[in-house]
Amino acid sequence: MTLLDQPHHDGSELYVPAGTPALGDVVPVRFRVPASGTERAVWVRTVRDAEPRMVEARLDRSDEHERWYVAEIPVHNPVTQYRALLDEPGGYRWLNGRGTHARDVGDAGDFRLTVHAPAPAWTSDAVVYQIFPDRFARSGAANELPSWAEAAAWDDEPIGRGPSTPVQYYGGDLPGVEQHLDHLERLGVDTVYLTPVFPSRSNHRYDATSFAHVDPLLGGDAALVSLSAALHSRGMRLVGDFTTNHTGVTHEWFEHALRDQSSEEAGYYYWDKETDLGYAAWLDVPSLPKLNYGGGSLARRMVDGPESVIGRWLAEPFSLDGWRIDVANMTGRYGPDDFTHEVARMVRRTMTVANPDAVLVSEHFHDAGPDLSGDGWQANMNYSAFTKPLWTWLVDPASTLDFLGIPTTIPRRGGRSVVDTMREFDSTVPWKVTARQWNMLGSHDTPRLRTVVGDPALVGVAAGLLFTYPGTPALFAGDEGGATGTNGEHGRVPMPWDQIAAGGGPRWDASTFELYRGLIALRRSSRALREGGLRWAVVEDDAVAFLRETADERVLVVAARAPWSGARLPRHLLTGEVAERLYGDGLLGIRPDGLHVGGDGPGVQVWRLA
Amino acid sequence: MTLLDQPHHDGSELYVPAGTPALGDVVPVRFRVPASGTERAVWVRTVRDAEPRMVEARLDRSDEHERWYVAEIPVHNPVTQYRALLDEPGGYRWLNGRGTHARDVGDAGDFRLTVHAPAPAWTSDAVVYQIFPDRFARSGAANELPSWAEAAAWDDEPIGRGPSTPVQYYGGDLPGVEQHLDHLERLGVDTVYLTPVFPSRSNHRYDATSFAHVDPLLGGDAALVSLSAALHSRGMRLVGDFTTNHTGVTHEWFEHALRDQSSEEAGYYYWDKETDLGYAAWLDVPSLPKLNYGGGSLARRMVDGPESVIGRWLAEPFSLDGWRIDVANMTGRYGPDDFTHEVARMVRRTMTVANPDAVLVSEHFHDAGPDLSGDGWQANMNYSAFTKPLWTWLVDPASTLDFLGIPTTIPRRGGRSVVDTMREFDSTVPWKVTARQWNMLGSHDTPRLRTVVGDPALVGVAAGLLFTYPGTPALFAGDEGGATGTNGEHGRVPMPWDQIAAGGGPRWDASTFELYRGLIALRRSSRALREGGLRWAVVEDDAVAFLRETADERVLVVAARAPWSGARLPRHLLTGEVAERLYGDGLLGIRPDGLHVGGDGPGVQVWRLA
Repeated sequence: MTLLDQPHHDGSELYVPAGTPALGDVVPVRFRVPASGTERAVWVRTVRDAEPRMVEARLDRSDEHERWYVAEIPVHNPVTQYRALLDEPGGYRWLNGRGTHARDVGDAGDFRLTVHAPAPAWTSDAVVYQIFPDRFARSGAANELPSWAEAAAWDDEPIGRGPSTPVQYYGGDLPGVEQHLDHLERLGVDTVYLTPVFPSRSNHRYDATSFAHVDPLLGGDAALVSLSAALHSRGMRLVGDFTTNHTGVTHEWFEHALRDQSSEEAGYYYWDKETDLGYAAWLDVPSLPKLNYGGGSLARRMVDGPESVIGRWLAEPFSLDGWRIDVANMTGRYGPDDFTHEVARMVRRTMTVANPDAVLVSEHFHDAGPDLSGDGWQANMNYSAFTKPLWTWLVDPASTLDFLGIPTTIPRRGGRSVVDTMREFDSTVPWKVTARQWNMLGSHDTPRLRTVVGDPALVGVAAGLLFTYPGTPALFAGDEGGATGTNGEHGRVPMPWDQIAAGGGPRWDASTFELYRGLIALRRSSRALREGGLRWAVVEDDAVAFLRETADERVLVVAARAPWSGARLPRHLLTGEVAERLYGDGLLGIRPDGLHVGGDGPGVQVWRLA
Repeated sequence: MTLLDQPHHDGSELYVPAGTPALGDVVPVRFRVPASGTERAVWVRTVRDAEPRMVEARLDRSDEHERWYVAEIPVHNPVTQYRALLDEPGGYRWLNGRGTHARDVGDAGDFRLTVHAPAPAWTSDAVVYQIFPDRFARSGAANELPSWAEAAAWDDEPIGRGPSTPVQYYGGDLPGVEQHLDHLERLGVDTVYLTPVFPSRSNHRYDATSFAHVDPLLGGDAALVSLSAALHSRGMRLVGDFTTNHTGVTHEWFEHALRDQSSEEAGYYYWDKETDLGYAAWLDVPSLPKLNYGGGSLARRMVDGPESVIGRWLAEPFSLDGWRIDVANMTGRYGPDDFTHEVARMVRRTMTVANPDAVLVSEHFHDAGPDLSGDGWQANMNYSAFTKPLWTWLVDPASTLDFLGIPTTIPRRGGRSVVDTMREFDSTVPWKVTARQWNMLGSHDTPRLRTVVGDPALVGVAAGLLFTYPGTPALFAGDEGGATGTNGEHGRVPMPWDQIAAGGGPRWDASTFELYRGLIALRRSSRALREGGLRWAVVEDDAVAFLRETADERVLVVAARAPWSGARLPRHLLTGEVAERLYGDGLLGIRPDGLHVGGDGPGVQVWRLA
């Protein structure tokens, strides 16, 4: 018996018609039950105005392996929750996004249909490449060292923690990015996510002094226009990064507010007497005063309408293809205030007008589910359901790294705990969000993957999962060369262009580059890997396997962190006599009694079964 | 090893100071860890403006049995979520309201502190007695049979399903209730919850034709004033029932709206062209048009301010002690509209002014958690976390009853599944809600308990749990005499006063009355049973046991649905040499190696250990 002996549903095309339903629509949703199932009937429980309704599913088709049921679900509310009831001897079971349950469960794990547009379709095919401008490449344009900065040589190691950390200045700029687009194309990525480009007083630029222009140190507005055009001419895209939660303490609005407490701008901030600073700030960091969406014209300047920051940079000539929203989880939330969903809705509305094909991605490290079902953020930087559980599976047992705000080292967990975590967090968002979450192995805010896992072979396992799991893969520039770093700041390493050009060096591992290039190509070769559903097949301490399936393709992904015992899967998963090896060099034995997955590890194998 | 070897926290006085914190307060919260624990440190994760913060707990005290940790939690948001992290070798575990987890979990099971007032303190001591006026008692006042009604004799069996069901009229009235308050006093209940008393065209009166006066068939306003005064003079209380979700189709507002679509009242309803009726109605029942809180003056008439229905009946001379809100889950929700929390807040605000000591209880059969943390409903009719799981434990295996909207019979489950369900639903609400939820074994909307469980001995087990579990026990008049009924309507049986007076009869079981009377007295004899925390001690298929603990008392409750193997609990739970038997006739062996709980069943035993 494998996990494939469980009934299954997700929001992919085999189960739910493509497209975004409207209020009043009726949507047929499908459930598959293995032939070994004992169900007498299948019902679907929807929730209408907070009251459940049971709709009986009818048997749609069946063969010797499984039965497919279909139920017609009315779309009455903007978010339609549903789950299946399997009426079985011995008591019914529920099937929701976390699996099956032989008891009553709450609604948090329900499947969800929403009337809100998902992230644009191009993000299904995209591979995102994150660039931290100060560290990517210097164009050589002569720039004076800004007053706040401490000059670093390009080969210096980033200072991970200390007063110099935010001001250590390498001088990368946007023309530098533009000069290296061939590297991106060789790798196979097609969407650049640029961390902030507004002027500021730090190397990370999350403390903007203005949102009116691109930092002259980066080349100014003209450099962004040029980079955007260069990317678009290659069929690539460009996503910006915006701090809706705060500005820099030297932002023109905050300075205006300090000068004149009766000004419009004074209403943009929280002048909270309870704070040590006299104003609310992000995590009490003095340089990042928090924005107050509770009154005044802030929303109009920031997020609402074509003249807002959100709108203006999506329009020509900058033509951004989307925004990543910094600290989206905290945006608009302060004490009794909670304007987050309102702000998110305004951002979306503005984007829909300015560039309907742009993507809106939130930063939310935690339980983002409740923020991701509305007409706001379309996808999230997927730390909770991807990065963090994956790390706990692959972490170097000797690692002493802190676990992203948890005051312990990263624990090493078995596959069951990892998959349960992924399923729990995945289940709190609609499938169309899961399918386009920004999955990552790390970012500018985390240690580098290579440092987390230690063993280079495990980098391959992690990357293998990144490019085969549902969602939009996003990597941080340098990961493809094996960059290291013990925390977010320490991992913001400059790209070693000389070593890259030389085909390798102490800070550039060409084999890792080939690994990423191969996996990106793998992903591009299979629609199932980009758009298919997700059925877990094997979950063991040292190995996991899952199927990605569309109407016309079935791909098996097997990932092992160590040698394991292998597994036998149902023979009928393979249509025909031969499985097409798409990736890896493991074994798949095709025998009358099933498909025998070999127990090699660490490694990733990918097979096309149908 | 028992479940008591797990770390524990809940919101009761041993762990959280009594009282409602205000924004800006700092609250010390305590966690207990058994001596067998391997923790190196305990941290508490709070969530501030949607961003977690970790606070280290310090060791407060310890003995040879356990360690107590305390952490100072800032109250920054109206709802402060928190959970503990146990830093243990092999990887941390989380402790939340569902137990411990060796992996990351979402926030839904977090503990919660809120700045909102809980249900009033008197509800901790209250035992609620639900009365359905048409079926409780006739005063003998001469009343003409209303035009919509079909007369029933007092001894007739209620018609469970059919066109006559809502119009079968027995003629109970409020003076009838007042005449039988001695019965309530003898039983030991002290709070009457009256289902609706407004005029209508049905026996259930959920289809009000006006909210201006009490139905003359019930005795009119004067009868309510008199009943309220009579109850109050006995130290008892009276809670009303209000349909915030809908009116009757013959309500004066709806009739006005039908006559004049430009009237103010026309704005009170949803004139939805997509519906068969031309207007939205509760579950599409034509007689119950749904109210629209989206505009106009409806809120002011219904819920907002002293002149609203909510306010007016709390004021003298009616002096209601609270409201039960019918269909609270659907109130204010329709398609894209969701005004529920807004309506709930208005109701609360109105009640706070009109009668600050009144209670506000919602009807929500399902996952009510998200509606119960705000400044609205204070407690819920606790079907999800109490009635339904309990039924699945005690149901007659031969029962063919439908399971409250689930299209199968009531499944029979083991103790683990039952307790997991209770913990899951309990964990979605603040402890102060759990502590004052209206727990029930049934209501006018369900089959009668006696019919669900079959075996009278299991009625005793169910009632034993009702009066010992955290929450406010609520029983439906007649349950104390063993009333039967196969669905809500069929169970609305008239009270057989002649048999009650005679000390028993075919429809009145005097031993059941004594059982309830004894259990109510038990509850009144122990503050721990009313206000204590909840620690699960034993969870087996056929038996469960838990501790209720205050600072000065520890009570052990053991419930078995069948003979079982018994269990051994830590000896140190007993302070002193003798356990005080509070209820039941099972055995508790006190030996050096522990407390040996006997395996008798079915039955309930309650022991005071400290």
